[in-house]
Amino acid sequence: MPQTVETAQSASSATGHRPGAFPPSILAGADPGAAEVVAALAGALASARAARRDGGPAPRGTPAEVLAEAAGALGPPALPENGIGTDAALRRLATLLAEFGIDLSHPHAAAHLQPPPLAVAVAADALASAGNASLDTYDSAGSALAVERWVVRCLTRLAGLGTNADGVLTPGGSLSNLLGLLLARDSAARAHGVDVRDDGVAALPCPVVLCSELAHFSVHRACAALGLGERAVRPVAVDAHRRMRPDALRTVLRAARGAGTPVAIVATAGSTDFGSVDPLPQLAEIAAEHGVWLHVDAAYGFGALFSDRLADRLAGIELADSITVDLHKVGWQPASASALLVGDAGGFQPLERTVGYLNPADDSDAGYDGLLGRSLQTTRRPDAVKVAATLLAHGRGGIGRMVEVCHDLATHAQRRIATEPELELVAGAELTTVVFRYRGGAAGDVGEDRLDRINGVLRRRLLESGEALIGRTTVRERVCLKFTLLNPAATPRDIDELIDRVLRAGRRGIGETEEEAR
Amino acid sequence: MPQTVETAQSASSATGHRPGAFPPSILAGADPGAAEVVAALAGALASARAARRDGGPAPRGTPAEVLAEAAGALGPPALPENGIGTDAALRRLATLLAEFGIDLSHPHAAAHLQPPPLAVAVAADALASAGNASLDTYDSAGSALAVERWVVRCLTRLAGLGTNADGVLTPGGSLSNLLGLLLARDSAARAHGVDVRDDGVAALPCPVVLCSELAHFSVHRACAALGLGERAVRPVAVDAHRRMRPDALRTVLRAARGAGTPVAIVATAGSTDFGSVDPLPQLAEIAAEHGVWLHVDAAYGFGALFSDRLADRLAGIELADSITVDLHKVGWQPASASALLVGDAGGFQPLERTVGYLNPADDSDAGYDGLLGRSLQTTRRPDAVKVAATLLAHGRGGIGRMVEVCHDLATHAQRRIATEPELELVAGAELTTVVFRYRGGAAGDVGEDRLDRINGVLRRRLLESGEALIGRTTVRERVCLKFTLLNPAATPRDIDELIDRVLRAGRRGIGETEEEAR
Repeated sequence: MPQTVETAQSASSATGHRPGAFPPSILAGADPGAAEVVAALAGALASARAARRDGGPAPRGTPAEVLAEAAGALGPPALPENGIGTDAALRRLATLLAEFGIDLSHPHAAAHLQPPPLAVAVAADALASAGNASLDTYDSAGSALAVERWVVRCLTRLAGLGTNADGVLTPGGSLSNLLGLLLARDSAARAHGVDVRDDGVAALPCPVVLCSELAHFSVHRACAALGLGERAVRPVAVDAHRRMRPDALRTVLRAARGAGTPVAIVATAGSTDFGSVDPLPQLAEIAAEHGVWLHVDAAYGFGALFSDRLADRLAGIELADSITVDLHKVGWQPASASALLVGDAGGFQPLERTVGYLNPADDSDAGYDGLLGRSLQTTRRPDAVKVAATLLAHGRGGIGRMVEVCHDLATHAQRRIATEPELELVAGAELTTVVFRYRGGAAGDVGEDRLDRINGVLRRRLLESGEALIGRTTVRERVCLKFTLLNPAATPRDIDELIDRVLRAGRRGIGETEEEAR
Repeated sequence: MPQTVETAQSASSATGHRPGAFPPSILAGADPGAAEVVAALAGALASARAARRDGGPAPRGTPAEVLAEAAGALGPPALPENGIGTDAALRRLATLLAEFGIDLSHPHAAAHLQPPPLAVAVAADALASAGNASLDTYDSAGSALAVERWVVRCLTRLAGLGTNADGVLTPGGSLSNLLGLLLARDSAARAHGVDVRDDGVAALPCPVVLCSELAHFSVHRACAALGLGERAVRPVAVDAHRRMRPDALRTVLRAARGAGTPVAIVATAGSTDFGSVDPLPQLAEIAAEHGVWLHVDAAYGFGALFSDRLADRLAGIELADSITVDLHKVGWQPASASALLVGDAGGFQPLERTVGYLNPADDSDAGYDGLLGRSLQTTRRPDAVKVAATLLAHGRGGIGRMVEVCHDLATHAQRRIATEPELELVAGAELTTVVFRYRGGAAGDVGEDRLDRINGVLRRRLLESGEALIGRTTVRERVCLKFTLLNPAATPRDIDELIDRVLRAGRRGIGETEEEAR
């Protein structure tokens, strides 16, 4: 018999008037339940600490081995009939996440745009979960609405948007890009006298979305999802600094205008691999000239605005019609904490919706509207709570310093890589990434194809030995390695150690492929 | 100067080799930071307890008053330059959420499909936030991947889907429906030789989505987002039990086939207001006959499968091509905990994607793929951790009992409403909702238009006095009231008190409108 039922029965017999009801202690929001949450979390984190591996940020073994062990630790692959209770369940999960999971707070975790989250943000996120407010209507949210409005205002001001600006939090950058392109699509259609919401995309002649060839793949995915098709994407060439070329944009845009409907120009402010920022003022000028929506994908780059030293790299972002921001990247939030900001609140018009049980007219008149009309979601968790807690706790200054520490780490890595004869610097620190390639010595000693293999194996070996999590990407069809440095508690010494590990793994790779070649 | 910077500097001078770096205690995943999370959360919950209102589940006042007070409590409407530290920030947020927020664990919170979340789920969600794994790739997730695969397998088995079934967690039911319809759209297009992903929806002649007139509005929104247009939605009539009529579906489908492309039949398993379930076996038969994708929106109804007593209401769900499940409804999870299940894993093909820095071919061969190809998201938080913890802690039996307790409460409310002469029962307890109308006495005493006004005001008055959160909807163009009963710690006595409050508020409304009439 499951533990919960026994508890329920004894509670029932004790009070005499709770037939069948469960004790309030099972609920996070009730008084005894809140204490349960704290106790259970403390127990879980203690289990996680006990299970933590020595050494690096990754579990040892191949993915197949690690996932098989984790699955085994979960128990039989079936929904259990009876429960094992809160503490045992949490201990089991905490242990397997610590033992076979990744540790982002380790200074040698440097693979993705995935930061170790701040303690304040995690605690505030738990507070938000316990309350379970939902931002679609007033009576499902209450004051959580005020928290999101406050966060949105902080972000629009930080971006330099005007007083008509607005925004909404979303579950991630890919969905923020999708939402921004949906607003752009429907706005372009309106300008052509087409009602896409009712009539669909078929009525819109040859829609086109222009972005740099380094734009995030979620732009392509969004075009597929929105019914525009991926062929709507027109990639524009970049310059030597990996920024979209305005002259190339003009050429592509002119061709597109002749044949169809330009829906949006998507500028990238912080490309995933390089942190490069498209020339926003020039792109905004071209967008304005042609009356095309300018969406800035600043999922990665937005965080630079917190820093006095780096903010000017995003100059011109205030000219955008919409902006994607991911505070679960440079903002040290646990996912999800993304936002779509718009320069003009009227941009949200395609999302307006009246529903009998959510926002009937007389309720709207009485101020009961929530934020349903700014989102494709209905139930929407208040991710703004953790963001607000972080902005209050650390201030712009504190977060800006974190950005600068990570930029300094990337600059340190760049310098060291440039001086190592076995490494080739491919792209230096624009924001917090550095791209490089293990060469095994002077150029030409080892063939490029063999180096591709060595670099790929090197990264997997560092991971499977548990030593380090580093990134990997493809530049000019060659396999490269990447550090994405987002740990503000890491030091230059940590980075030096990380590079030493890369060198050791590379040398081993060279030796092995020489043996293979013999 | 922000507190964090001071801390960083003192840490730096103490250790001698952390120039600029922040102390690891600011990070949730590092050892001292984990203790910080627990301490900060405990402090926040204590502040929340101290700030809790006496009385009901809602803050007193109009929305404008409450939101103005909450905004004032947050501080100036601007990003602060300097931080106030973790504890002060959390106390401020916890206090304003408790004072001006809604309390879902109060037994008189009965408005929406928004449960008071379980303590085990909230603690596990915090554990997931602290780890910040992301499910798109193996090296951003590790064992969190195994947790999601386990949860998906539990859910597909509970639904009775076959061994080819698959699924993915999503941020909410509206996005699960969107994803299900995207898969259906692309599948229908493929069958017509059209590649929607590349070429867009324009190449698909007259797409049509069929659903009951009671289907959730997110079906319409999904059609708008996917470029099909809301006119693609063909509403099908329901019977007296509010279930889609198979004969009507056949008629509408026949007409649609002649003119265009049927994309999907959307069955509703648990309508938002009534909990009614469309006749799944008959709809599946029609779908199979015509080769049309069957999507079952079981966002609300899926929870019935945990209960032996109620599971057979969803018989036939195993015949679906895709299913929306919201465990943040009947599953007592904090949002978000939605899933899209598919009968055949091949259905996810439209989401396949290869990205140089995420899943290059040689990495895929080595087992490094994550779940990028099952989602429109890239970064994706492991909501599966809280679901797994809940399934382990309470088992199917425990959750099933919670469903039954809530169904019993709804049945109790239905009986009491049916015996109250001032109330009219509009729809009884199918799952956990009851719809009714305050009449102020025998039918005919008060005009229907005046009753519309009285019912609308009654609900807002209960909320603005803080006494109760109840739902409201429109049935046959009349304003009705609704209880959505999802608190497994509530008792029949709580429900009786709630109904007494409704009656008192109704009588006051009658008195006032009589005065107005004089």
